Amino acid sequence: MLDRKARQAGERVAPGIFGNRIIDLARQLGQHSELPDALMCTYFSQVHKAVAVQLRDWMRAAGLSAEIDAVGNVVGRHSGAAGATKSLLVGSHYDTVANAGLFDGRLGILTGLVVADHLNRIGRQLPFHLDIVAFSEEEGVRFSAPYLGSGAIAGRFDESTLARRDQNNVSLATVLRKEGVDLAAIRALARPPETLRGYLEVHIEQGPVLLERDLPVGIVTSIVGSARFRVTVEGVAGHAGTVPMSLRRDAAAAAAEIVLAVERRCFAAADLVGTVGQLAVPHGLINVIPGRCELSLDLRSSDDVTREAAISDIRAEIEQIAKRRRVTAVITELSHHLAAPCAQSMQSALAEAIARAAVEPFFLPSGAGHDGEMFAGITDIGMLFVRCGNGGISHSPLETVTAEDADLAARILLDVLVNLN
Amino acid sequence: MLDRKARQAGERVAPGIFGNRIIDLARQLGQHSELPDALMCTYFSQVHKAVAVQLRDWMRAAGLSAEIDAVGNVVGRHSGAAGATKSLLVGSHYDTVANAGLFDGRLGILTGLVVADHLNRIGRQLPFHLDIVAFSEEEGVRFSAPYLGSGAIAGRFDESTLARRDQNNVSLATVLRKEGVDLAAIRALARPPETLRGYLEVHIEQGPVLLERDLPVGIVTSIVGSARFRVTVEGVAGHAGTVPMSLRRDAAAAAAEIVLAVERRCFAAADLVGTVGQLAVPHGLINVIPGRCELSLDLRSSDDVTREAAISDIRAEIEQIAKRRRVTAVITELSHHLAAPCAQSMQSALAEAIARAAVEPFFLPSGAGHDGEMFAGITDIGMLFVRCGNGGISHSPLETVTAEDADLAARILLDVLVNLN
Repeated sequence: MLDRKARQAGERVAPGIFGNRIIDLARQLGQHSELPDALMCTYFSQVHKAVAVQLRDWMRAAGLSAEIDAVGNVVGRHSGAAGATKSLLVGSHYDTVANAGLFDGRLGILTGLVVADHLNRIGRQLPFHLDIVAFSEEEGVRFSAPYLGSGAIAGRFDESTLARRDQNNVSLATVLRKEGVDLAAIRALARPPETLRGYLEVHIEQGPVLLERDLPVGIVTSIVGSARFRVTVEGVAGHAGTVPMSLRRDAAAAAAEIVLAVERRCFAAADLVGTVGQLAVPHGLINVIPGRCELSLDLRSSDDVTREAAISDIRAEIEQIAKRRRVTAVITELSHHLAAPCAQSMQSALAEAIARAAVEPFFLPSGAGHDGEMFAGITDIGMLFVRCGNGGISHSPLETVTAEDADLAARILLDVLVNLN
Repeated sequence: MLDRKARQAGERVAPGIFGNRIIDLARQLGQHSELPDALMCTYFSQVHKAVAVQLRDWMRAAGLSAEIDAVGNVVGRHSGAAGATKSLLVGSHYDTVANAGLFDGRLGILTGLVVADHLNRIGRQLPFHLDIVAFSEEEGVRFSAPYLGSGAIAGRFDESTLARRDQNNVSLATVLRKEGVDLAAIRALARPPETLRGYLEVHIEQGPVLLERDLPVGIVTSIVGSARFRVTVEGVAGHAGTVPMSLRRDAAAAAAEIVLAVERRCFAAADLVGTVGQLAVPHGLINVIPGRCELSLDLRSSDDVTREAAISDIRAEIEQIAKRRRVTAVITELSHHLAAPCAQSMQSALAEAIARAAVEPFFLPSGAGHDGEMFAGITDIGMLFVRCGNGGISHSPLETVTAEDADLAARILLDVLVNLN
């Protein structure tokens, strides 16, 4: 099987050579962390910058011409054959959530890296430039604004996010200014659509579907659309012992109703999920009725109509809860992305390579957002999911990918690349 | 009216002399704060120690022999007449909540102080020692453990609280050790019941009852009983986009149900209040299903049976919620105080003095806990509530007491003292 695939790719690839290296590099990257006993790498932290430098150096060692760009993306080019004008982007992100796993995002970067290294070693040029991109920001952790890296390259950097502040009250604009980056530098990163051949991303599934079907990889049909909100409930603080229940305007009780309303509404449709991941009474005291409660809201569906209907219903229900409880609830939209369908051509290219590897081509939607969203409508996008172990757990140190599955993903990527024109 | 009262008190008291001074001293104390723009004074902070020194110095200037004791109480004695063996304690607390008002606790200390000063100036000794006590800790803010000051003097210091930790993970034991205080020193503060003549406390009402009845003061019949708990809900964290609603074990959604269950149960009985003042998903992220959520629970009733029934029902409901949602909920009791009835003798003494001041004696329960709870069953306790302005708001910078009402409270206290034997 391997020999057949390698022949079709036009090169010999020893089995396992990619997979073990990908796992090893992911472990090395995981040594850089903002937390002592867990992995965390957020936008433009010292740790984040060290990871960028490491990736750039690995890209250069792989023969790519690599640089770190204005917003922190690491871009390494394997130049195309003579006359090549367009670029195929192969990328994923290197930032992480708190207490993250080793593979979310990084698997895609390292898969691209080892494949580009292989192409360089064997002197094989493609009819397009191959740009391996390590996006600096996808998770949206520090500024509650995802896709800062891919958004800039896609020409979709949302300039309103510059005013966003992190939990130390430092704005994104301030962070970028400190790095010597101005708006012109960000705008200059945008790739004109006519220069792009396409976008490919390898990513762990972050769910249990492939695991349950006993399949190592799957072809993504569409990246979920999502909307994120901050809801701030303001009631009236008061003494926990002296204000009768009937006179209270308790911000936390209103927030609790909102949490359950979101849950109930999202149960009402298939292919819809809603999450209140952040919930807090700021400076809450055990003996004070909460005067304020803050929560986040994340709503996703790969069907835009389903999602927008849920958003509308939940907004209305929040208003009703606030009115009935005589509190105010201010809803701020943080981001809003329509579902991003993957190109038929890329899905087919992936399916053919998977079949050549003697694996059943299996198609599934992505419930998580990915950098590819930014390129949908700009160029053809394709995504390959890799099986996620441990029941499909992600955003957790328990997240796993086997070397065998990583190896297969790299060989499929190589096959797709050498067969694209 | 003033002249009549002054004659009956055996002294001349110019109208307003007490009230303006009490308000002025409360404002001076309010200058010491842990927050730049709001009042906060928590146990054994630098600010807290500065307030203790200020109170001690004011007590000494008022002719009292005053010291700061091992747990931070400031105790100033106006010695009794020859042969006096017992002490009457007049006190309240000087610690505050965050973003506090000027009068919660401090009104009672300062009322005692100006009255003791007056007795000293006119050379009037009582048949008992008059101990003005500024308790160091009542609110339970720093260690979620109230009555650290009054508990020590009452011989009811809960030694299990020594293991409690503040939000910087510093234990109470560590704080006390740093102050050079050991368990023997705390135990030595306990006043033997046979040495006590009684306990009197002046306190703002922290509610709207007196304000609505247009009465400046009221006689407390009973201090509410209360129980405090911490509830830690543990579910399973997961990716906000890839885990279907039906497979989630969301700790925040379970906590939200608990918040609403507490509210619903407390609506079901008069004279019962329940508050979730603290609610948080620790390190919550917008795109991660909460794996953990923590909340506080404060339940109060002046009827012990009502409160204990509610505690039992709420515990059972939390268990059901956890079971149904396949999460765990660990309930930790932080404190538990039965209702503390005020002595008939003290209620009568206050009622007589109030009537002599030509004010209608009005009786009401206290929905808030107070230091007096610690002395119930040990000595006769009495409490005088003073009207709380601004709709009865407390634990807020909007908390107010008028100089006129403070003045009346001081004159009533003086009257009670000179008429007790």
